[in-house]
Amino acid sequence: MNKPIPRTRADFGHFRTITTRWMDNDVYAHVNNVVYYAYFDTVVNQYLLEAGVLDIVAGPVIGLVVDTQCSYFSPISFPDVVHAGLRVARVGASSVRYEIALFRNDERAASAQGHFVHVYVDRGTGRPAPLPAEWRAALALLTV
Amino acid sequence: MNKPIPRTRADFGHFRTITTRWMDNDVYAHVNNVVYYAYFDTVVNQYLLEAGVLDIVAGPVIGLVVDTQCSYFSPISFPDVVHAGLRVARVGASSVRYEIALFRNDERAASAQGHFVHVYVDRGTGRPAPLPAEWRAALALLTV
Amino acid sequence: MNKPIPRTRADFGHFRTITTRWMDNDVYAHVNNVVYYAYFDTVVNQYLLEAGVLDIVAGPVIGLVVDTQCSYFSPISFPDVVHAGLRVARVGASSVRYEIALFRNDERAASAQGHFVHVYVDRGTGRPAPLPAEWRAALALLTV
Amino acid sequence: MNKPIPRTRADFGHFRTITTRWMDNDVYAHVNNVVYYAYFDTVVNQYLLEAGVLDIVAGPVIGLVVDTQCSYFSPISFPDVVHAGLRVARVGASSVRYEIALFRNDERAASAQGHFVHVYVDRGTGRPAPLPAEWRAALALLTV
Repeated sequence: MNKPIPRTRADFGHFRTITTRWMDNDVYAHVNNVVYYAYFDTVVNQYLLEAGVLDIVAGPVIGLVVDTQCSYFSPISFPDVVHAGLRVARVGASSVRYEIALFRNDERAASAQGHFVHVYVDRGTGRPAPLPAEWRAALALLTV
Repeated sequence: MNKPIPRTRADFGHFRTITTRWMDNDVYAHVNNVVYYAYFDTVVNQYLLEAGVLDIVAGPVIGLVVDTQCSYFSPISFPDVVHAGLRVARVGASSVRYEIALFRNDERAASAQGHFVHVYVDRGTGRPAPLPAEWRAALALLTV
Repeated sequence: MNKPIPRTRADFGHFRTITTRWMDNDVYAHVNNVVYYAYFDTVVNQYLLEAGVLDIVAGPVIGLVVDTQCSYFSPISFPDVVHAGLRVARVGASSVRYEIALFRNDERAASAQGHFVHVYVDRGTGRPAPLPAEWRAALALLTV
Repeated sequence: MNKPIPRTRADFGHFRTITTRWMDNDVYAHVNNVVYYAYFDTVVNQYLLEAGVLDIVAGPVIGLVVDTQCSYFSPISFPDVVHAGLRVARVGASSVRYEIALFRNDERAASAQGHFVHVYVDRGTGRPAPLPAEWRAALALLTV
């Protein structure tokens, strides 16, 4: 496995600020590895909600997570502020691969980065659903 | 038990903005009751850290939580932003009762409020420690 | 405020075993105060689900949490096992006050205890709903 | 990317039972993708603690997480019970690649699986530390 290289802010077009919490810190006084995925999850879903395409309660299409991954380069600790960068790497018929990097405070290089793959399914049947046109338009804005 | 009345922002002198997360929402699409305490915990400890009195890794005095309580008035949902108000209601020899209220987005009345009681103990012995003078000074700024 | 006295296992008729997790531990190597409420939440809802009265997805009545409280007596740490005792202290027209105590491993006295108040509402209207007969029957089994 | 094939219980020699929690469920009534990593984290660290090699508070060597990944095949929902299988795929000079699969209730095929890579460092210097002999012995028991 080649060692990944930390991305920089210039690699992302969309950012979201996330505040850390006391309980994010583990026994070594660093944000626990699990919590990074809570940041990933947040930046993806908040983008979809604010773009007006995801409707949690009533929308016909929901996202199921099928694969996630994270590489950790340097620690983040409460009360650091996290700037999560988001981009779309690939759009399939009903799946999307998002790439996320987490930047600590004012740092230029990522503290951690990874991917998050959503398959979009029909809420009723649970079967993969072709991505509606407005989703494609919203995702196109994140495509690098 | 008398029903508590939601406090307003005027009841607090210190605020901290906390971003919600996708996973804060429970199956009913509201922030789960447990997560409110993560907001409480954060505003208290962040105040102490930023006031320069709490040193997580090396300080001689640490805070143990002995009692917490929360009244829930109206739901908060991701991606709402939470403004946590903090004040000190009582300072004892080695304990402090904090009161916290959580305000949703631009709302004037609290969505939830409660208390958080810390006993400060010597890190080495675990015995209650008299609050150092600089702690008392930092807490005095939050006293109503 | 009078100091509460730790309850014992004899005070409860229903128990549920809960496993702790690495990330439950905070920077002081004890389960974070917030997480105790995740245990409370779990023992209450699991009882209602297994009694066949709560249907998360389709049931006409859902529980809203209006008040919670916890007193912490002695630390719990991962990988301890928690035995959560549950009882019903009061049943109103549409609300229930549950009392919970958390017992660490084989200990006889509670490490923490508190309450959890649910108001049951109609899923559609969000208005308080009279507790159905089968709920009352299930709760009666927990009444002390 | 080739689609991974769910592993079975026969692929693992060590198991740990993990109870789900009410708040693990997300708005779609399934365990949130983030929480799977809390299960991974737990089975790895609990093994090391119980093998007597990891000492959270005072040990000279601690584990830093450098890479994690999870593939999700089928949902887990509270109150399901999770059986986490653990094995060691690779041991380097100071790093270990663990592989984990999560089995829901009595199911034979994994609901999710992935990896977790620890680099072991000296607690004082933060520099990678050669794995002590007793760690190697404990890990050898998990090697497939």
